[in-house]
Amino acid sequence: VDGGSGIYESDFVNATGTPVVGMVGAGQLARMTIEAATPLDVTVRVLAAASDESAALIARHVEVSPSLELDPIAAFAAGCDVVTFDHELVAPEVLRALEERGHVLRPGAAAELYAQDKLYQRRELAAGGFPVPAFRRVESLDDLTDFAAEHGWPVVAKAVRGGYDGRGVWVLSDAGSAAELWSGASGTGTPLLVEQFVPIERELAALVARRPSGEAVVYPVVETVQADGMCRELVVPCAVPAAVTTEASALALRLAEAIDATGIMAVELFLTREGLLVNELALRPHNSGHWTIEGAQTSQFENHLRAVLDWPLGATGLVSPVTVTVNVIGRQGGVEPREVLPRALAVPGVRVHLYGKGYRPGRKLGHVTALGDEVDETRTRAWRAAELLMSGEAR
Amino acid sequence: VDGGSGIYESDFVNATGTPVVGMVGAGQLARMTIEAATPLDVTVRVLAAASDESAALIARHVEVSPSLELDPIAAFAAGCDVVTFDHELVAPEVLRALEERGHVLRPGAAAELYAQDKLYQRRELAAGGFPVPAFRRVESLDDLTDFAAEHGWPVVAKAVRGGYDGRGVWVLSDAGSAAELWSGASGTGTPLLVEQFVPIERELAALVARRPSGEAVVYPVVETVQADGMCRELVVPCAVPAAVTTEASALALRLAEAIDATGIMAVELFLTREGLLVNELALRPHNSGHWTIEGAQTSQFENHLRAVLDWPLGATGLVSPVTVTVNVIGRQGGVEPREVLPRALAVPGVRVHLYGKGYRPGRKLGHVTALGDEVDETRTRAWRAAELLMSGEAR
Repeated sequence: VDGGSGIYESDFVNATGTPVVGMVGAGQLARMTIEAATPLDVTVRVLAAASDESAALIARHVEVSPSLELDPIAAFAAGCDVVTFDHELVAPEVLRALEERGHVLRPGAAAELYAQDKLYQRRELAAGGFPVPAFRRVESLDDLTDFAAEHGWPVVAKAVRGGYDGRGVWVLSDAGSAAELWSGASGTGTPLLVEQFVPIERELAALVARRPSGEAVVYPVVETVQADGMCRELVVPCAVPAAVTTEASALALRLAEAIDATGIMAVELFLTREGLLVNELALRPHNSGHWTIEGAQTSQFENHLRAVLDWPLGATGLVSPVTVTVNVIGRQGGVEPREVLPRALAVPGVRVHLYGKGYRPGRKLGHVTALGDEVDETRTRAWRAAELLMSGEAR
Repeated sequence: VDGGSGIYESDFVNATGTPVVGMVGAGQLARMTIEAATPLDVTVRVLAAASDESAALIARHVEVSPSLELDPIAAFAAGCDVVTFDHELVAPEVLRALEERGHVLRPGAAAELYAQDKLYQRRELAAGGFPVPAFRRVESLDDLTDFAAEHGWPVVAKAVRGGYDGRGVWVLSDAGSAAELWSGASGTGTPLLVEQFVPIERELAALVARRPSGEAVVYPVVETVQADGMCRELVVPCAVPAAVTTEASALALRLAEAIDATGIMAVELFLTREGLLVNELALRPHNSGHWTIEGAQTSQFENHLRAVLDWPLGATGLVSPVTVTVNVIGRQGGVEPREVLPRALAVPGVRVHLYGKGYRPGRKLGHVTALGDEVDETRTRAWRAAELLMSGEAR
């Protein structure tokens, strides 16, 4: 049996014999990583910004630092065998300094930059032959309008750093909206890029887990259904030709190797009439992989841990013919999901995941996964439970 | 949608809005209950005998009391909405006193007695028409030998209280071994019963989850493979005629109602030439249900929580055609499973659960579950990973 070259058997054994994975950030991704760590006897320590964050509420080992500067993270990293991330918010120069001090970051600073700096990512991917939409850096209002003159309105402006869940992305329909955005962005100093607006047939995501030693596995491609810039629903398998999923999987594996990703990497893809385009990259467990907890032979959270520890990766095959995951997102006038949980549990054959976060409109509060034999029936069940958790009422 | 009558919506909401389940005992059953609690946003507090117990190592909320007397348990229960158990070690009179003080125990003291006092259980079950082996109370050596004269050697002597995993059970082959046991037992004052030795074709287990309001669900019947008094392997579905599994399921549901079980109840059954006999009862999550974590639509640990909180119970159907679970039990000259974990993870398509317990021969250290389409192939995979965890070597 191969695969004995991981962290347990070499340099990373702590006093109690269990490896310590430090996770910077304590959102729901860290929370679900902890859930996956316990059966593997892996200790996860989280660095939370506040003690009431999702993972901080349930973690056995929590440190709190509202600051993501070098010193608090280095102090945290000193107690960890390997450091990984729940978000992309640690500044690139801080990541590089941590590596210079000898801390083991997975993903490393160089790979993480692809998720942190959208302009860098676009340039490098384009140079590497990966399919991306036409783009350019925006240093003036003219850059926006010239780009639109070449590619046609609308165009998509993006913050180079820090956007997510629809924040930091603006669809500009004409010169007036471009001027309005520019006056705001130039005032705040937010660096921007602009991209072609691509008519999308579907949005897909391909998830890869990759070890430092190079072993990589890819999950079945998932269709993501978005609204208001947030992912609402995942359906596996996705209803596209096999040639498309094969291409998406190959692209994701090639990309993970090209950027030396370690841990989980999610590639969000646009399926257009002309083929696949890379939309976004994330180098961490990702919302598009929540279906894997029940729907895959190994969850993305377990494979993230195995990957960052350089352990053999788990199988990614489907457990059931169909898996549907629906996000529970706070509604205007909605309810606290935990207060109506028993109603959702009465829906047969659904798995509810609450993140322990207080209700707020637009906030991701949990998700529901259903397994089944047939897409429509499975979707109906998952949505029924999710709707109850969002509104308290059956749809 | 029905099912809104649970604890969240009535009397059991704590300050943070999540219900608090107290678990007395901090072994692997409590550890896996905590794993199931997080996605439901349920807080589990454990009362550990020592801070290095399996669940105490990972729990966010731990109290330590080596004593299981009334005062420490009452103090613990005061911070819980409902109290449940990882073991049967709390004395019946302590349980009754806790209920008299108004603490909510699930299972209650009266039901728990069936798992704590084997003589009481045998008498009540026989009186209720449930199939049990012939038995009698042992108050003298003559009781043993008279019983054997009537039913034939060998006979099975059992401690009325406290036995588990083969401890507290003696197969007596003749009058000499009976005299030897009696001289020891009468000296220590251990109350005994004696039972007919029943030729067993197979051992089965039926798991029920039952709410205080009466809703109950039963899991597919599992075959348990025992050695040295400990369960080694679980196979679902079990290879017995449907009439047998139907009878076992009906028996378990009837029994749960008869004794007013709440939470998970496991009925260990002997399949004999004359039919099914009740072997043992446990009123808690049980080793025979570990397969449900991956293999059933809802795990026994989640359904235990839902049941003790009086929430709607989850579906118990199979996720895969075959599920096999193999226990990882410390071998003479064995290894620490955590030190060889990466080797086991290289076995494709297995789920490893380590309990965080240090290696000791005969100790349950973890389990491995494999899903598959066919029993032999699935067993082979599960055993390969379990063997690696027990010996460090492939079999």
